[in-house]
Amino acid sequence: MSFKESLILEQVAFNSEGLVPAIVQDAASREVLMMAWMNRESLRRTLTEGRTWFYSRSRKELWAKGETSGAIQDVHDVYYDCDGDTLLVTVTQHGSGACHTGNYSCFYRKLDLR
Amino acid sequence: MSFKESLILEQVAFNSEGLVPAIVQDAASREVLMMAWMNRESLRRTLTEGRTWFYSRSRKELWAKGETSGAIQDVHDVYYDCDGDTLLVTVTQHGSGACHTGNYSCFYRKLDLR
Repeated sequence: MSFKESLILEQVAFNSEGLVPAIVQDAASREVLMMAWMNRESLRRTLTEGRTWFYSRSRKELWAKGETSGAIQDVHDVYYDCDGDTLLVTVTQHGSGACHTGNYSCFYRKLDLR
Repeated sequence: MSFKESLILEQVAFNSEGLVPAIVQDAASREVLMMAWMNRESLRRTLTEGRTWFYSRSRKELWAKGETSGAIQDVHDVYYDCDGDTLLVTVTQHGSGACHTGNYSCFYRKLDLR
């Protein structure tokens, strides 16, 4: 990892498991597509390669979004919040969408009490 | 808690600490404003009262967004994702914005390697 990469990644407050939640938003429509977790290495790859990489907490491994499905995400910008413990990644979504169910966004269901 | 409230809340997969991350998005501009955590009771109040309530992991207590600052959030819709373990809350933001720094969104800084 380069010195510049280290400096950039120091701005992020990874949790006790070394992870940070990353919200993914469509850069054009501004639809929120998904939320997944990143560790330092997946964030470094996301920033350097310009495509989203995440960390699977169940499989305990890095994964490249769209590697098998083709639904890759080209990264526009990566924002971090006031506490430095959450990321917002704006992307161009390719393929059928961000969700493994075939929906464009993972947030396709509503909770409704009224 | 009513039977209907219980049924609604069963759709959400709270983590081992009883929490779920809630992304808050401006319903009009679609800007992502913040991310905070909810437990069952804060989600129940958010759904029934139509204003956002969260759970502070540091203070270990419920908090009503905007209670002291006036920056309350009127809830439009609450979505849950394909895994049921992340929420997306669309709101009308009141006051100066969502962030305690005075910024409208908490995501006002970019990570940039290029």
